[in-house]
Amino acid sequence: MAAFHPLVASRVRLAAPLLPVAAPAAVVVAAAGPSFHQRRFSAIVAAATAPAATEFDFKAYMGERAVAVNGALDAAVPAGEPPATLHEAMRYALLAGGKRVRPALCLAACVVSGGREAWAMAPAAAVEMVHTMSLVHDDLPCMDDDDLRRGKPTCHVMFGEPIAVLAGDALLALAFQHMASVDSYPPDVDPAKHTARVVRAIGELARCIGSEGLVAGQVVDLEMTGSTEPVPLDRLEYIHLHKTAALLEASVVIGAIIGGGSEEQIERLRKYARSIGLLFQVVDDILDVTKSSEELGKTAGKDLASDKTTYPKLLGLEKSREFAEKLLSDAKEQLAYFEKEKAAPLLYLANYIAYRQN
Amino acid sequence: MAAFHPLVASRVRLAAPLLPVAAPAAVVVAAAGPSFHQRRFSAIVAAATAPAATEFDFKAYMGERAVAVNGALDAAVPAGEPPATLHEAMRYALLAGGKRVRPALCLAACVVSGGREAWAMAPAAAVEMVHTMSLVHDDLPCMDDDDLRRGKPTCHVMFGEPIAVLAGDALLALAFQHMASVDSYPPDVDPAKHTARVVRAIGELARCIGSEGLVAGQVVDLEMTGSTEPVPLDRLEYIHLHKTAALLEASVVIGAIIGGGSEEQIERLRKYARSIGLLFQVVDDILDVTKSSEELGKTAGKDLASDKTTYPKLLGLEKSREFAEKLLSDAKEQLAYFEKEKAAPLLYLANYIAYRQN
Repeated sequence: MAAFHPLVASRVRLAAPLLPVAAPAAVVVAAAGPSFHQRRFSAIVAAATAPAATEFDFKAYMGERAVAVNGALDAAVPAGEPPATLHEAMRYALLAGGKRVRPALCLAACVVSGGREAWAMAPAAAVEMVHTMSLVHDDLPCMDDDDLRRGKPTCHVMFGEPIAVLAGDALLALAFQHMASVDSYPPDVDPAKHTARVVRAIGELARCIGSEGLVAGQVVDLEMTGSTEPVPLDRLEYIHLHKTAALLEASVVIGAIIGGGSEEQIERLRKYARSIGLLFQVVDDILDVTKSSEELGKTAGKDLASDKTTYPKLLGLEKSREFAEKLLSDAKEQLAYFEKEKAAPLLYLANYIAYRQN
Repeated sequence: MAAFHPLVASRVRLAAPLLPVAAPAAVVVAAAGPSFHQRRFSAIVAAATAPAATEFDFKAYMGERAVAVNGALDAAVPAGEPPATLHEAMRYALLAGGKRVRPALCLAACVVSGGREAWAMAPAAAVEMVHTMSLVHDDLPCMDDDDLRRGKPTCHVMFGEPIAVLAGDALLALAFQHMASVDSYPPDVDPAKHTARVVRAIGELARCIGSEGLVAGQVVDLEMTGSTEPVPLDRLEYIHLHKTAALLEASVVIGAIIGGGSEEQIERLRKYARSIGLLFQVVDDILDVTKSSEELGKTAGKDLASDKTTYPKLLGLEKSREFAEKLLSDAKEQLAYFEKEKAAPLLYLANYIAYRQN
């Protein structure tokens, strides 16, 4: 939980970020650094006068959700039971830390759609299982051949390639098992509507994995990596929309479905999620160019060194920032439709994705 | 569809196989060859006197189901659409032929449980997707390293290892997407009960894949292959129950759930499926010892040559046959609970699994 922007993490008035923000200034934080952003942000906070505004502690919010989600993940995969190696590998990959952004999105979308947070705990764990599975398979020697993940040896380095493939498969299956199990939901879900919501949510989760989601993105990414031709912008966007945005979208939409959201709510949250999904990747690309390795906690300039196509490379840094700003403002526009207090976590999540420093 | 035992495939009176068969004689066919079995079987048929017995054409039954299932699979994966390589690999693995035993079990279990066959077409396609996915991943160089499957180059030989891993992942996800889609079911399913059945069926499918099913079996199988110690019987049974029986069980149980079977029906069909699942593997092991490569359509004696533990190796051929016979009779015992005519396909499927010659 060390990765939050210091300002986003601090206690600020809930109403403040919902004010119409001059987005360019807010987004250039990636380049200008926290001090510039801090001044701009502080000014906005100071201008907010709503006296009864509830305080929202984003850092505490994320920390509490991470603890709950980690508990659900820990309980979902047995420890020590045979086949012990498989379970060990699944737990190693699943409980390696991480900010649990996708589960937080799922839980927050459930609440903003009128549901109880506990209704979405199993789906939140499921989206994290899918995310982990995609990391384990993408890291394989035959794919991206990555030895390190979150500063630790990757799953296949620790357990060998066959177990890594199988642990990924098992995590994928477990996600659906977890979503489908009656025991995954508290007893107060609406008995008349709950199962239909679960089926629909399972469909969303499945769709974001395969040839319309993660897998498709990885296939096109692999094709591009092997090619010497420059990657056109639409291809780059395809990769990111599939590799990153699809699962973020599913996380949000699944939460909204389980929470009993209306069709309009679900579609607005879907648009919100698509914007922050792409934003996530654009910011990633900008950070790679503008931050040092130390600040990132991983090798900076890696994309440039590997000749990987990024937004700054295709659009230039300034246009990339403008694009990020547009995405953030699009996301916020959708949230304006919802009850302010309930939408706060989603708003802060969007800001966090935009303003994160690593 | 060339693999059916000539007798089982021919038109015989429905009532015949339901007669109490002296099972040892029936099962030794694997060793004695068709002519012995033919005589034995003919004698039973001759003894059957039920005049109004319906004829059941097993070969036609299986052929028709295979066509329908292949149609569903063909429609489920788009051809030519991007990412084209991925879809091509998925279609290559999925539409490579095969007897579609698992879908047939699913469809037959739906009908015997009181449902319409069309209700179970999507689940039947889904179990075949899961089966195909497990073959694609098990064939990978880092696993069993198989170059041929059903006489054709395996998926990774055709499309490379990364695409094979990803096509497997996509097929797994597609199975759940297909199960969860409203469009997968005809409009005459019971609106009050259908979604709860779908959720339960999805749970069954998910459970049979991961650390309680296919993946667990493959993990223990890999462990055993690397070990020089003799495999104990309980380990061998663990591998087969997970690698083979779990998905056969899920296929049957999913059909029964979607068909609206009672709890007793579902549990009896589960027992039936467990028996034929293990039977499938015991017969496989017996055939490897008793048949020539030509008869099998694959290398005979492969298990012996690779020093792989099999039932004949652990129990001897005669005891293996007795075990197969016991499993077949256990399976039939469960079917006796159901309406004779509706249970015919499941009965013939059990006989087919016991009496197949390759």
